[in-house]
Amino acid sequence: MASDLTPTKADRFSFGLWTVGWQGRDPFGEVTRPALDPVETVHRLAELGAYGVTFHDDDLIPFGADNTERERCVKRFRAALDDTGLVVPMATTNLFFHPVFKEGAFTANDRSVRRFALRKTMRNIDLAAELGARTYVAWGGREGAESDAAKDPRAALDRLKEAVDLLCQYVRERGYDLRFALEPKPNEPRGDILLPTIGHALAFINQLEYPDMVGLNPEVGHETMAGLNVVHGYAQALWAGKLFHIDLNGQHGLKYDQDLRFGAADVKSAFFLVDLLEGAGYDGPRHFDFKPPRAENVDGAWVSAAACMRTYLILREKARAFRQDPRVIDALEAAGVGALSTPTLAPGETLADLVADPTAYETFDADAAGARAVNIEHLDQLALEHLLGVA
Amino acid sequence: MASDLTPTKADRFSFGLWTVGWQGRDPFGEVTRPALDPVETVHRLAELGAYGVTFHDDDLIPFGADNTERERCVKRFRAALDDTGLVVPMATTNLFFHPVFKEGAFTANDRSVRRFALRKTMRNIDLAAELGARTYVAWGGREGAESDAAKDPRAALDRLKEAVDLLCQYVRERGYDLRFALEPKPNEPRGDILLPTIGHALAFINQLEYPDMVGLNPEVGHETMAGLNVVHGYAQALWAGKLFHIDLNGQHGLKYDQDLRFGAADVKSAFFLVDLLEGAGYDGPRHFDFKPPRAENVDGAWVSAAACMRTYLILREKARAFRQDPRVIDALEAAGVGALSTPTLAPGETLADLVADPTAYETFDADAAGARAVNIEHLDQLALEHLLGVA
Amino acid sequence: MASDLTPTKADRFSFGLWTVGWQGRDPFGEVTRPALDPVETVHRLAELGAYGVTFHDDDLIPFGADNTERERCVKRFRAALDDTGLVVPMATTNLFFHPVFKEGAFTANDRSVRRFALRKTMRNIDLAAELGARTYVAWGGREGAESDAAKDPRAALDRLKEAVDLLCQYVRERGYDLRFALEPKPNEPRGDILLPTIGHALAFINQLEYPDMVGLNPEVGHETMAGLNVVHGYAQALWAGKLFHIDLNGQHGLKYDQDLRFGAADVKSAFFLVDLLEGAGYDGPRHFDFKPPRAENVDGAWVSAAACMRTYLILREKARAFRQDPRVIDALEAAGVGALSTPTLAPGETLADLVADPTAYETFDADAAGARAVNIEHLDQLALEHLLGVA
Amino acid sequence: MASDLTPTKADRFSFGLWTVGWQGRDPFGEVTRPALDPVETVHRLAELGAYGVTFHDDDLIPFGADNTERERCVKRFRAALDDTGLVVPMATTNLFFHPVFKEGAFTANDRSVRRFALRKTMRNIDLAAELGARTYVAWGGREGAESDAAKDPRAALDRLKEAVDLLCQYVRERGYDLRFALEPKPNEPRGDILLPTIGHALAFINQLEYPDMVGLNPEVGHETMAGLNVVHGYAQALWAGKLFHIDLNGQHGLKYDQDLRFGAADVKSAFFLVDLLEGAGYDGPRHFDFKPPRAENVDGAWVSAAACMRTYLILREKARAFRQDPRVIDALEAAGVGALSTPTLAPGETLADLVADPTAYETFDADAAGARAVNIEHLDQLALEHLLGVA
Repeated sequence: MASDLTPTKADRFSFGLWTVGWQGRDPFGEVTRPALDPVETVHRLAELGAYGVTFHDDDLIPFGADNTERERCVKRFRAALDDTGLVVPMATTNLFFHPVFKEGAFTANDRSVRRFALRKTMRNIDLAAELGARTYVAWGGREGAESDAAKDPRAALDRLKEAVDLLCQYVRERGYDLRFALEPKPNEPRGDILLPTIGHALAFINQLEYPDMVGLNPEVGHETMAGLNVVHGYAQALWAGKLFHIDLNGQHGLKYDQDLRFGAADVKSAFFLVDLLEGAGYDGPRHFDFKPPRAENVDGAWVSAAACMRTYLILREKARAFRQDPRVIDALEAAGVGALSTPTLAPGETLADLVADPTAYETFDADAAGARAVNIEHLDQLALEHLLGVA
Repeated sequence: MASDLTPTKADRFSFGLWTVGWQGRDPFGEVTRPALDPVETVHRLAELGAYGVTFHDDDLIPFGADNTERERCVKRFRAALDDTGLVVPMATTNLFFHPVFKEGAFTANDRSVRRFALRKTMRNIDLAAELGARTYVAWGGREGAESDAAKDPRAALDRLKEAVDLLCQYVRERGYDLRFALEPKPNEPRGDILLPTIGHALAFINQLEYPDMVGLNPEVGHETMAGLNVVHGYAQALWAGKLFHIDLNGQHGLKYDQDLRFGAADVKSAFFLVDLLEGAGYDGPRHFDFKPPRAENVDGAWVSAAACMRTYLILREKARAFRQDPRVIDALEAAGVGALSTPTLAPGETLADLVADPTAYETFDADAAGARAVNIEHLDQLALEHLLGVA
Repeated sequence: MASDLTPTKADRFSFGLWTVGWQGRDPFGEVTRPALDPVETVHRLAELGAYGVTFHDDDLIPFGADNTERERCVKRFRAALDDTGLVVPMATTNLFFHPVFKEGAFTANDRSVRRFALRKTMRNIDLAAELGARTYVAWGGREGAESDAAKDPRAALDRLKEAVDLLCQYVRERGYDLRFALEPKPNEPRGDILLPTIGHALAFINQLEYPDMVGLNPEVGHETMAGLNVVHGYAQALWAGKLFHIDLNGQHGLKYDQDLRFGAADVKSAFFLVDLLEGAGYDGPRHFDFKPPRAENVDGAWVSAAACMRTYLILREKARAFRQDPRVIDALEAAGVGALSTPTLAPGETLADLVADPTAYETFDADAAGARAVNIEHLDQLALEHLLGVA
Repeated sequence: MASDLTPTKADRFSFGLWTVGWQGRDPFGEVTRPALDPVETVHRLAELGAYGVTFHDDDLIPFGADNTERERCVKRFRAALDDTGLVVPMATTNLFFHPVFKEGAFTANDRSVRRFALRKTMRNIDLAAELGARTYVAWGGREGAESDAAKDPRAALDRLKEAVDLLCQYVRERGYDLRFALEPKPNEPRGDILLPTIGHALAFINQLEYPDMVGLNPEVGHETMAGLNVVHGYAQALWAGKLFHIDLNGQHGLKYDQDLRFGAADVKSAFFLVDLLEGAGYDGPRHFDFKPPRAENVDGAWVSAAACMRTYLILREKARAFRQDPRVIDALEAAGVGALSTPTLAPGETLADLVADPTAYETFDADAAGARAVNIEHLDQLALEHLLGVA
C-alpha cells in the first residue's frame, strides 16, 4: 500500500457520541467504562482525524434537564466544535432509553406518549439545525412489538406516517436545511421493529407527504441481522436516490446487535460496500455506528475507533486498485458485468419490434445459451486476491 | 368448533400445478413421485374443494413444445376447467429451471437471455389472459448473484424495471385485464436474490412506469427466510394497497426453502395472518404454494393439500371467535390497541397547536407514563388460548 | 378441556428470582420496573402455585455484601421459604454482571479472575447446599469471544474443564448432594460462547474428571437461537442420561435472547417438548427462565409468570390426549414411528447373518421401497389439530 | 507474498468426485453441466496439484450396477489413480439420492431400509479399504425429520448407534485400517437432521461401542448454517482428539447449503481456521467439499477448484507470518492470550489451598480487575491487517 492511511477531514469520517462513549452496559452486564465528556470526545475525534460528530439529544443534554443545564451543555459542546473544527453533520433523538417509550414512541398505543415523542424530537431538531446538521436520523428502536395481538401494524404505519409528515412540516415551517434519514432495523430491542429493512423503509417513504425530504440511513449490521446482502441493500437505496446517510459497522450474522468495528466481521462484503459507495460517488459522511467491545477499557475504545477509519481507507485503496487492474477489467468484460447496463431493447427499438424479432424467441438457441461460460469464479477470486493483497 | 370445515369454492382456495405436482426432486435426491397429469390435478383439486388452479407455462406445456403440442395441452386443460368449474386466477412464468436462466432472466448479464425471458413471459401472458387469469406473478428466482463482483445491483434494478415496464405496456396494448404481482424472496436458488423482501419489492414498484398495475404476491416462507415477522410484512403490503395475491405455506426459520403445508410451522403466526387477511377484507385467492414432503407418496401429497385448506378454515373460525370474545374486546381496550388508530393530532389541531401544548411536553409526566400498565401479556395469552381452543 | 389448569406443587413449577424480578433493563433502555424483594417473590410464587424458587448468588445477596448483610438476606429468604413451603431445587452463580467478568470468568485470560470466579461459585454452592438445592447450574455467559485472535478455544476448554473438575471435587469433599447442570447458549452477551449447544456441552462432559456429576440445563430459547430443533436437542440430552434440569421459555428464531414466556413463540414445538418430557418421565423441576416483556409493569410480569404454568398444563393435557387418541395410535402405526424402536438386527442375528441375508441387499427392491407410503402428513396434521383443540 | 502458491501433493489437497463433478442440479433448476468421467476428474485434479480424490459409491459405480459394470468402473478408476499417483484418502456412501432413503437410511422408520443402508455401506467400505482409504465418512443427510410427530429422536439415536457399532464391528472383523468420520449438518435436505453440529456428533460418539474408531468430518458450511463459530467448533473437535477429516468450503450465513469455494464467504474466519489447523498440527487431508456455482460451465468449475487450493495456500502463508510478527507476539501477550494456557491452580496447589487463599477472594479487588485493559481490538485489527496484506 503506497498511500497514506491517516484519516483527514476530507475523508468525511464521523462518529456518534454514543459510540466511543458507550459504557459497556449490556443485557447481562453493568457498565465497564466511565462516561466520556462530550467535549473530550470531540477533541479526541479531531485528533484521530474525524471531521464530524453526531448525537442523540440525551447524549449531550441529560433527559429532563432544565434550560440552564441545557444551555451549559450546548455551549461547552459548541466551543469544542469551534476549537477543533469538527462539524455536526447529523443528529437524532433518543426515543428508546426512558421507560416512557417502552411500548413505542411515534407508534405507542398511548397517544400522549406519541405527542411527547414528537415534541422531544422537534426540540432536538432545533438544536440540530442550530449546530448546522443537514441530516436528521430517525431510528424507531421501540416502534414494534413482541406480540401480534398487541399492535395493529397498519395503524402503526399510519401513526408513523403522521409523525414523519409532521416533522417534515416542522422543518419546512422553520426553514431548516435538513433532511430526514430513516434507519431500518429488523429487531432489538423490540421483537419485531416496523420498517425492518432498507426495502421496507424505502417503500414507506413513498406514502409520505414530503417524500423528497426523507431518505435512508442504512446500517451494515442491521441488514446483516436480516440475513440480507448488505451491498444489494445499499445499492437499492442509491438506485432510489435515497442514500442520505450511512452507518458503518460489523456484525456476525443473525444474533444480537453486535455493532462491531467496521470491517471486523465479513470484510469481503465491507470491501464491496466501500467499492459501491466510492464508485457511486456517495458524498455524505462515512459515519461509524459501532460499539467498542464491552471488555475494552477507554484506551481500547479509542483503538477500536481509529481502526474503523483505517480499515475504510485500506478498503478504499484496494477498491480503487481493483477497478484499475487490467486483469479485472478483462474479467468484468468476460463475465458480462458491464453488459447489464445496456438496455434490453436496442436504441429506438419498440415493444412491437421485440415481439416481432424471431432471434429473441423463435430462433433463439436456449440450450447453447445455457451452456455458455459466465466466468464469475475467476472474477470473484480476483476480487478476493485484491482484498488479500496478493493480486 | 361448530362450523363446517369442508372447503368450498366460496373460500377461494387455489393451488399451483407445481405444488401438489412436485415430484420430490431436491438438491440431494431424485424424484420420489410420478409426474401428475394437469388434468387429473384439476379434477382432484375440484373434489377437495379448491376453486382455482395456477401454473407456470412449463407446468402445462413442456419447454420448447411446438404449437401443436401446445394447443393439445391447453385444450385438455381447458376442458378439465370446464368440467370442474375451476378457474385460473393466476399464472406465472418459469424463468429458472432451464440452464439458459442460470445467470438470471430479466437481469441476466447476457442481453439475449433477457430478451428471451421477456418473450417467454409475454407468450404465457397471452395464455393467462385467455384462461381468464387476473393476476400474473413474477418471481425472479434467478435474478441475483453469489458474488458481489459479478453483478451490478443498480444495473440489475434498471433492467428489472425495464422488463416490468415492458410487460405492463404489453398487457395494456393487448387490453388484458391483468395485474402483476411480484414475489419477493431473499435467497435460493441464488445466494442473494434481488427484491429480497416485501419491503424491497414495494419500494421497487414506486420506480415503475405503471405502478398501479403492479403489486405483490408475498409468501409466508419467504419472509420467514429473512427472519421477518410475516404478519407485519403482509400488513405493510396491505397498507400500501399492494396485496394483489398471496402464497400461503410454512417454514421453520432460516434454512432452505421448505414450503411446508400452511400452518405446519409457526401456527400462532399463521393464526394472526388469517386474522389480518380476514379482518382487512382481503378478497383475492388463498393460494397455497407448498410442497408435500418428498417422503410422501402421491396419496400423502393429497392429504397434505387438503390439510392446507382445513387449517385455514380452522384458523379463520378461531380468528372470528377471538375478535368477538368480550374478554378479548376488553383486553384490546386495556392494551390500547384500538387507540393507535386515533390520530396523534386531535381533530382540527395544527402543528402549531401541538408545539404550543404544554401537556404534550413541558408538563408531561414521563416517569408516570413510563410506569403505566400496557397489558400485553394478558392479551397475547388470550390469543394463544383461543388458538389452542381453551379460551 | 375437562381438567383443572390450576398449578399445584405436584406440577413442580419453579422460577428464578431474576425472571419475575427482571427490571426491564435492555441494551437500549433503562429499567422499567422496581426491584422485587425476594421475600415478596417467594410469597407471590407460592400463591400462583409454584413449588420452587431459584437464584443467582447476587439475586439474593448484593455483590460485595459483608457477612452481616449476607446473613440477613439469607435469613429473611429462608423464613419466606418456611412460610410458604417453597423449595430451592436449584441455584447458580452470577459470573457475568460485574465488570470483573467482562473477558470471561472460568476462562478469562486473566488467571486471577478465574480464581475469583471459582471462589465466588464455591461460596454460593455452600448456600445452595444449605438451602437444599440438588442441582447447581453453570451458565458461562461470558465464556467466549468476539475475536478469533483473542481467545484460544482449546486452552479455554482446558480451563473450563479444570474449573468444573475443581467444583465437582469441592462438592464431593464437602459431601453435598448436588449435581451440576451446564447451560449451553450460542451467543449473547459474547459474540460466540463456548459450549454453544446441547451437543457441545454433552461432548464436553465426557472429558471431565467426574462426568457422572455433570449434566445439562438446556433452554428452549438458546437452542432456538442456533436454529436447532428444540425437541431433538432435549431428546439427545435425555438419551445420554443428562437432562438434569430444564429452562422453559420462548424465542422467535435467530435474534437477541428474547426469553419470552413459555409457549408464546413456536407453540407446536412447545407441545412436542412437553410431550417428550412427560413421555420420557422427566421428573425434575419445570423451571421457567423467561423475562416478562420490558413494557409490562409489575402486575403484567405476574400475569406473564402465571401464563407460563398455565400453558404448560394446557399442553400437558393435550399431549396426553394425543397419545391416547385411537386415530393417533393408528397414524403412528401407519407411519412406522414405533417400528424405529425395533433393532435393525433381529434378536440373535449377527453381523455375519446380516451380511449373508440376500433380502437385505441382493434381492431387496429399492424402487418399491422408494415408492412406499410414509403417512407423515396425516400424522402431523392430527397432532396440529390436537394442539388446536379441534381433533 | 514471496512463496510459491502452486499446490503440491505435500499440501494434501483432496476433492470429492461429486464436487467438481456437480452438474448444477438444484431445487429449482436442471443440470447445467455434463457429467464428468471420474477418470478425467482424476487426471485434472492431479494436474491442478491435488494429492487425493474421494467418492461416494454411486459417484463411481451407478446405483444398481451389476458386478461386471462395477468392476469395469473400479478398474478404470484405479488405472487413473496409478497413472497420476493420486490417492484415495477417504470414501463415503450415498444414502440420500435414491427414493429408498426418502425417510432416512440408518434411522428410517422402515427396518428393511435400514438393513439395505447398512449393506450398501459395507459394500463400499470394502472398496474403500481396497483402494487404500483410511477414513470413511458418514453423513446422515436423510437421518432427520420435518415433523416432530413422525420420528422418535431417541429411537433414532439408538438405531444410529446400532448402525455405527455394526459398521465398526465390520471393519474390525475385516481387519481394515479404517476409521469413521461423522459429518454433522443441521438441516437440508431434511428439515432437521440428527447430530446437527460438531457438538452433537462428538457427544454421540461417547455412547458408541468403539468410540476410538469414530471421529468427525466437520464442514465449514454446515457449522455456519447453525450460526456457530466455525473455528470454535473445529477446535472443540481437536480438543476431543476427534478431528479425523475436514470439509473446507464457504457459506454466507443461514440459508440453503451453498458449498461455495473455500474462502469465498467469511475469509477472516477462513484465515483463523487455517491458522488453527496448521498451528494444531492437523495432518489429515485438506478436503474441499464445495460446489462450483451452477452458472459456471465446466471450465469455470475447474477455475473454482483451483482457487480453493490457492486460497488455502495464501491463508497458510498469512497465518505463518501473523504468528511470527513481533508486533503480534507483543499484542498476544498484552491480551493475555497465552496466559490462558496456565492452569488456574498453581503447580502443586490443591483445592484446599485455593479455598484458603485470601487473594483469590477476600482481598481480591474486583473493581480494579474490572477496569483492566484487555487489548483485544488492537490484536484483532493486527490480524485483519495481516489478512489484508497491509500489516
